Amino acid sequence: MDRRSFLKTSALGGAAAATTALAAPAYAQGNRTLTMVTTWGRGLAGVFDAAQRVADNITAMTDGQLTVEIKAAGELVGAFEVFDAVSSGQADMYHGADYYFVGQHPGYAFFTAVPFGMTAQELSNWYYMDGGMELHDELGQIFGLKSFLAGNTGAQAGGWFSKEINSPEDFNGLKFRMPGLGGKALGKLGASVQNIPGSEVYQALSSGAIDGTEWIGPWADEKAGFQEITKIYYTAGFHEPGAGLSVATNREVFESLSPAHQKVIEIASAECHQWNLSQFLANNGAALARLQAGGVKIMEFPDSVWDAFGKASKEVLAENMSDELFKKIHDSAMASMKSSSAWIETSSGVYTKQRDRVLG
Amino acid sequence: MDRRSFLKTSALGGAAAATTALAAPAYAQGNRTLTMVTTWGRGLAGVFDAAQRVADNITAMTDGQLTVEIKAAGELVGAFEVFDAVSSGQADMYHGADYYFVGQHPGYAFFTAVPFGMTAQELSNWYYMDGGMELHDELGQIFGLKSFLAGNTGAQAGGWFSKEINSPEDFNGLKFRMPGLGGKALGKLGASVQNIPGSEVYQALSSGAIDGTEWIGPWADEKAGFQEITKIYYTAGFHEPGAGLSVATNREVFESLSPAHQKVIEIASAECHQWNLSQFLANNGAALARLQAGGVKIMEFPDSVWDAFGKASKEVLAENMSDELFKKIHDSAMASMKSSSAWIETSSGVYTKQRDRVLG
Repeated sequence: MDRRSFLKTSALGGAAAATTALAAPAYAQGNRTLTMVTTWGRGLAGVFDAAQRVADNITAMTDGQLTVEIKAAGELVGAFEVFDAVSSGQADMYHGADYYFVGQHPGYAFFTAVPFGMTAQELSNWYYMDGGMELHDELGQIFGLKSFLAGNTGAQAGGWFSKEINSPEDFNGLKFRMPGLGGKALGKLGASVQNIPGSEVYQALSSGAIDGTEWIGPWADEKAGFQEITKIYYTAGFHEPGAGLSVATNREVFESLSPAHQKVIEIASAECHQWNLSQFLANNGAALARLQAGGVKIMEFPDSVWDAFGKASKEVLAENMSDELFKKIHDSAMASMKSSSAWIETSSGVYTKQRDRVLG
Repeated sequence: MDRRSFLKTSALGGAAAATTALAAPAYAQGNRTLTMVTTWGRGLAGVFDAAQRVADNITAMTDGQLTVEIKAAGELVGAFEVFDAVSSGQADMYHGADYYFVGQHPGYAFFTAVPFGMTAQELSNWYYMDGGMELHDELGQIFGLKSFLAGNTGAQAGGWFSKEINSPEDFNGLKFRMPGLGGKALGKLGASVQNIPGSEVYQALSSGAIDGTEWIGPWADEKAGFQEITKIYYTAGFHEPGAGLSVATNREVFESLSPAHQKVIEIASAECHQWNLSQFLANNGAALARLQAGGVKIMEFPDSVWDAFGKASKEVLAENMSDELFKKIHDSAMASMKSSSAWIETSSGVYTKQRDRVLG
């Protein structure tokens, strides 16, 4: 479904949200259960954990006045149907990766990751300080959603391959799983790019429906079991240098909550952005060592491949610039990234180089 | 006051906390005001903002059932007296940098920063995933405190100097402001090290009571006005590669709160660790450019100085290892740092290098 057809079919949700903003808020009395659908299969390492943490912290901080009940992908709606389900009011909120919804609006890519875009820290700087959160909200107003970042995987690994990648030409004809604008960039290298929900990737890879996949990083990938299928693993990737996850609440539902409960959802989400990033980063090192000990070959893409990634990524971003809101989000994100990345390099970049040199 | 004399004089607080743990919790009815003392002067950029954010979010999320009222340094007790004030129950909670309290226990250094220690992200990984939070709590039990990280300045700048630093010998006899174990390391280079609360540093530097100071980084330093006094500024420093700030609540007070309100304090604090880090990182780049445009000379320490910092820092850490809890915290932090720093280098380290190379 593209954005235009979505806007047509969801006119009801949009109108409802618009009128709610004008009406006096009617705070719900007593306890209330909110249904959270997710783009994740139940128990999927890291990403489902993030959904669970936000849900549990909302429930705990409100002493159960807001009780969030999670439905994993497929339990109420499919992984990629959560956006429409919450936008239309079928479910109250979702936890997911917003770049799954670039079909609804390409600007959503920035709230997960764009190729050659922001690291997790740069995303955080932009989101909380340089206007990112407000732009997320501007997108949400189109679709009747109130969104907050609520998780981050850190820099994602290049992924699992059936063969080594020695030149850009090796992507030609490769059936590869990669969502978002990164996937569109890979398509420009001749790959046959597929978008498959996380809990279905193992089956697709083991059946040969795809030749390779990116998922997240060593810890989550090991839990998914990809090392049982192939032994070629690329660590650094170009496509998701710090992938944000989001909680989006139906805007009408959100506005019916008390200011205190609205704040609880906002802060529980933000806290999880940090917690979840630490979860991935603290677990990846040991997982990579285990994968290597189990015979997985740890690889880096050669410069020629990075160059091709760069060229394709620029083209993909340029193709979306005719959308005014996409361009506005892009320009805001890139200006913030430029400023904060320069300081990070000058300060902790220089520090960690010296630490490595001095401590060995 | 050293730790032993502290323990003697605060026996009352310790005993009260111990019995509370056994008694049935008596949840306060109705609204309750908690007094938060801070190590910061009112309005001090970044650090006072962090205290304010935690206070405001606790108040907002509980709809005022817990209203946190801030007393800046000097309004109720002095900056460095907040620890004893909260431990003894004179105030309910403090916001501050825990390395001010290495006199109470040297292990507190790790919850702000130790020289050649963790970046902000590595601290976060350790704290939330690898046992750091539990060790913070183990320290808190000694002093009747319940502590949570609640702010981070990012990697701090080397600081402001009256002369250029070309060799380790240039520190000999230099009167320099640097708290914590970093200051103790600088003392080994012959510096006369002083610990001065943030809001008193400008006066000390302009009067010549000190020859130089580290404070935080370009944005907070510019607000403090140090560029009016000297024009020599070193960016990367060895002493605080990711300085954490903390909220500590009197343990008896904390345990008298409902589980929901305890969770609100925990999550509001954690959220502020991320928010505050983004605040510093998003503002430092532009501030550095303004400082430079205003005639400040931006410098990096030469390798010989970094080597001397490294040697002195190792000695300072080694000197504290006879304290069992210090050693336990040190070993836990360093094991986590080793694992998470290696992965960060392999993933976002390689990515950002390629991004710089490809995008120019």
